Amino acid sequence: METIAGPPSAFTRVRRLPERAAYDEETVHAILDAAMIGHVGVLRENRPVVIPMLFGRVGRDLFLHGSVASQLLRGLAGGIDVCFTATLIDGLVYARSAFHHSMNYRSVVVVGVATPVDGDDKVVGLRAVVDHITPGRWDEARRPSDAEMRQTAVLRLPIDEASAKIRATGPVDDAEDVDLPIWAGQVPVVPHFGTPVPAADLNGAIALSPAVGRLGR
Amino acid sequence: METIAGPPSAFTRVRRLPERAAYDEETVHAILDAAMIGHVGVLRENRPVVIPMLFGRVGRDLFLHGSVASQLLRGLAGGIDVCFTATLIDGLVYARSAFHHSMNYRSVVVVGVATPVDGDDKVVGLRAVVDHITPGRWDEARRPSDAEMRQTAVLRLPIDEASAKIRATGPVDDAEDVDLPIWAGQVPVVPHFGTPVPAADLNGAIALSPAVGRLGR
Repeated sequence: METIAGPPSAFTRVRRLPERAAYDEETVHAILDAAMIGHVGVLRENRPVVIPMLFGRVGRDLFLHGSVASQLLRGLAGGIDVCFTATLIDGLVYARSAFHHSMNYRSVVVVGVATPVDGDDKVVGLRAVVDHITPGRWDEARRPSDAEMRQTAVLRLPIDEASAKIRATGPVDDAEDVDLPIWAGQVPVVPHFGTPVPAADLNGAIALSPAVGRLGR
Repeated sequence: METIAGPPSAFTRVRRLPERAAYDEETVHAILDAAMIGHVGVLRENRPVVIPMLFGRVGRDLFLHGSVASQLLRGLAGGIDVCFTATLIDGLVYARSAFHHSMNYRSVVVVGVATPVDGDDKVVGLRAVVDHITPGRWDEARRPSDAEMRQTAVLRLPIDEASAKIRATGPVDDAEDVDLPIWAGQVPVVPHFGTPVPAADLNGAIALSPAVGRLGR
């Protein structure tokens, strides 16, 4: 598999439990595509701020959509240093010892400079955000007006400096603990999509969105 | 309901869509208790880094457990500036317009100085982390040895400067879009706990953990 940008940088190198790390593009992209949201870290007055954000991916670019853009980018046309982290929780891991309790998860960290996009790139970014969880929804919805486009900020973050971290096994207890009379194992965690609820003001003759109908398949 | 620490600070005041904000302790604590993990932002060489972390709450303190502690606290006995954000995704919201697509969510942001804890406080913190998703599990598991305690870093972050943000409604379309022939509505998202899987080396005579059996009830 391909490496994204050569060896991991000082920022993306996984320091703790490096055997859980991956740096190849295929792994990084697959985790990003499976995550519903990300958490974006920025500096505000030299303190860290972390905000949940919707996002989408197009090739080797992430597009971020949310309040960070409008709040923090005023006057920062050159972009802003960000750390984008997406985490999927796959399971709870119960060891005999409290010490070895853990989670199964897949996470990706992308660091870099996020810059605002405009024009066609902004449309590409918004489409990626709307289609991220629900592919095909952009083509069903009313496109943004010029006024809406002006009210929307979209940032592009290249996926150049990135790492993935994965844990995907049962509990690993110390040998001397295995015979303790304590249950050990794992419990899978999966996000479940419930039954679609039509808007209160929806015309009852309108059929469910095909894109929404494909959710989770 | 009680306010945590007076009015919101410049850091925790919700700037965008302030009608979604809440600052009372009951709301903040309930969201923290329902979240499985948090994302912690810190500065490393003056750049933001965001890392997923396990955590627990005891009263007005959060306890954080994970690699941030060991990596970033060396030599920082005075603590470290952090932003801890926990987000629950409750639903996907589909408007007629692409512009009004959204999510239903509950999120909490806590900012402050996280400091390492030791001794009895460390035991309290570890117990909170283990019991956070699975109340009662700490009492079932083997307690940490002295050596394990030394290998574990736990940070305490007071929940003094915090805010919550909640979206919990269907789509809100512009009036002129309501009659468009486009499906609009929401899809609930709920984390689903699967069937517990015993460890490969578990003695088959050992019954399922009662704490694990109560998950999700």
